[in-house]
Amino acid sequence: MTYQAPLLPSPFRCHRGGEIVGGQIAYETWGTLNPTKSNSVLIFTGLSPSAHAASSPADADSGWWEQLIGAGAALDTHRFHIICVNSLGSCFGSSGPASINPLTGVRYGDTFPDISIEDCSRRPSRSRSPRHRTSGSHRRPFSRRLCSAGVRGAPSRSRPPLISISGTMAASAHAIALRSIQREAVRNDPIKGLRLARKLGTVTYRSAAELAARFGRAASSGGHDFAVQDYLDQQADKFTKTFDADSYLTLSRAIDLFDLNAHGDPTVLFQRAELESALVIGVEQDALFTIDEQTRIAAALRAGGIPTQLERVDSVAGHDAFLADQPLFAAIIARWLQDT
Amino acid sequence: MTYQAPLLPSPFRCHRGGEIVGGQIAYETWGTLNPTKSNSVLIFTGLSPSAHAASSPADADSGWWEQLIGAGAALDTHRFHIICVNSLGSCFGSSGPASINPLTGVRYGDTFPDISIEDCSRRPSRSRSPRHRTSGSHRRPFSRRLCSAGVRGAPSRSRPPLISISGTMAASAHAIALRSIQREAVRNDPIKGLRLARKLGTVTYRSAAELAARFGRAASSGGHDFAVQDYLDQQADKFTKTFDADSYLTLSRAIDLFDLNAHGDPTVLFQRAELESALVIGVEQDALFTIDEQTRIAAALRAGGIPTQLERVDSVAGHDAFLADQPLFAAIIARWLQDT
Repeated sequence: MTYQAPLLPSPFRCHRGGEIVGGQIAYETWGTLNPTKSNSVLIFTGLSPSAHAASSPADADSGWWEQLIGAGAALDTHRFHIICVNSLGSCFGSSGPASINPLTGVRYGDTFPDISIEDCSRRPSRSRSPRHRTSGSHRRPFSRRLCSAGVRGAPSRSRPPLISISGTMAASAHAIALRSIQREAVRNDPIKGLRLARKLGTVTYRSAAELAARFGRAASSGGHDFAVQDYLDQQADKFTKTFDADSYLTLSRAIDLFDLNAHGDPTVLFQRAELESALVIGVEQDALFTIDEQTRIAAALRAGGIPTQLERVDSVAGHDAFLADQPLFAAIIARWLQDT
Repeated sequence: MTYQAPLLPSPFRCHRGGEIVGGQIAYETWGTLNPTKSNSVLIFTGLSPSAHAASSPADADSGWWEQLIGAGAALDTHRFHIICVNSLGSCFGSSGPASINPLTGVRYGDTFPDISIEDCSRRPSRSRSPRHRTSGSHRRPFSRRLCSAGVRGAPSRSRPPLISISGTMAASAHAIALRSIQREAVRNDPIKGLRLARKLGTVTYRSAAELAARFGRAASSGGHDFAVQDYLDQQADKFTKTFDADSYLTLSRAIDLFDLNAHGDPTVLFQRAELESALVIGVEQDALFTIDEQTRIAAALRAGGIPTQLERVDSVAGHDAFLADQPLFAAIIARWLQDT
């Protein structure tokens, strides 16, 4: 089940200005923290998922990474204490535009501060994690004190490993262009626009090859011309039932604005991050976070002295491969965790 | 200058039902028809261009294929009589949703028939050209009798050559998905939606590599975050000042619905088309009409017994390369016209 806790310092001063009072972070956990508090795995999500990455006794519904997390799975709940957080600014329990501002008693809406990736990944120490959708096993106390989950400054033996999946050090012009169109659609009309944004998201998250194989030119059974349009409708229906338009605007823009280079030379930053090792996974067919971007992340990690494995996945599911081809990712992660 | 002429039979019965009374076709010409009426080149456009492919004494404004057409150019006005038509259903002089219906005296709007590519390329004979954005030099009388520009049924020596640029025999699921999103945006809001549609069009017409090289993460000077957003704004401004939302809906859907296979085996169809030869040009980086689709067009032409040259162009301008890299296309076309 999802916990909500006042894990942010209050007030929480945002990277790009503004502050959040009484901020909440929603999270779920699986497995048990060991006595030395050294077996935590922290999962950051993509733009839209909740903290419900997998089912649990308290919540039997399948999670978005169901095949990765469980007894004997790649992220083995017998071995690890796994925590997944709902991003700050999202709408599944963490403070965001859809939350009530405790200072006013009304929904933040567009008065919610401009959240940045720096805020989403921030710990109250000096830590500034450059990670976008990453999992890190760390050996500092974590438990329910999310903000003290330090990745930096620990002695050598407490250096955590890092897994980065289909991320970027700075969004490309192409990805920015697409997301800016999605946000314009949402600003034009929060209801119809969120549908359009999700449909465009779906096309860019997958690949042309997958749409050709799954739908081709098959006829619609839903009042459109083609079946691929029914598919986009279904994706939009699912998304708009649960996702908040202001959260979408906030998180989408945060991804555009994040630039690791703004914090210094990535090589130096990775050097300072004191990671034990890193696994970078990218998908050849990812049109949004390209394989070249994954190669650059791996190169910067290596230049920073971090033993890094780059895995190039071949999947027509494109950017969504980590969701659509979970056994592939489970195998890569399980092997890497075994080797490191 | 653009001529308008009642070149359609009246009533013109549309391929998918409905009819047009007193239909007009707008066109421009360059060069002079020779005494044997054997030097015509007919240019079909993409979705949005007008018939103004090049400047002329009557209209000094640059056209969209300015560098291809002229004295000594690839399409040499000393040699050829060149005709470019504004597509039926468009809004630059040819009958379309923005035209006045002569039967009612009011604008057609969404009462204009469902235009198909078959209608756009139809001649009053039995001809059914499968071509999407193609140029064909033909040796039958053309002049101003556009509808009698036969490609079929002529004796051997009058077989015309064909140039096909970044077209398709049937739109892919990926391209359909993108266009259906654009149309949904326009249906939601003809003004704001046409802006969105053009912005998305711009992203898909170009390539990620080009946007990275031209804009990268450069800052906006127009109130956005990034310069690439200013660029999309400029493209949307230009387009929405001149293009009609209903024409957009009509022509976009026509492209989705066209399927050469609906008329029979493409190999047999090309065999029957009695073409002298064909040049198929595709762009490696074209995300919308992929290089694989060009390869399939060339293969079907060859299987139909037509000597066919396939040119794979390398251009970060993607689908727009024929507009953005005109010297490249001019060189290919000039060489091919010389050789054939």
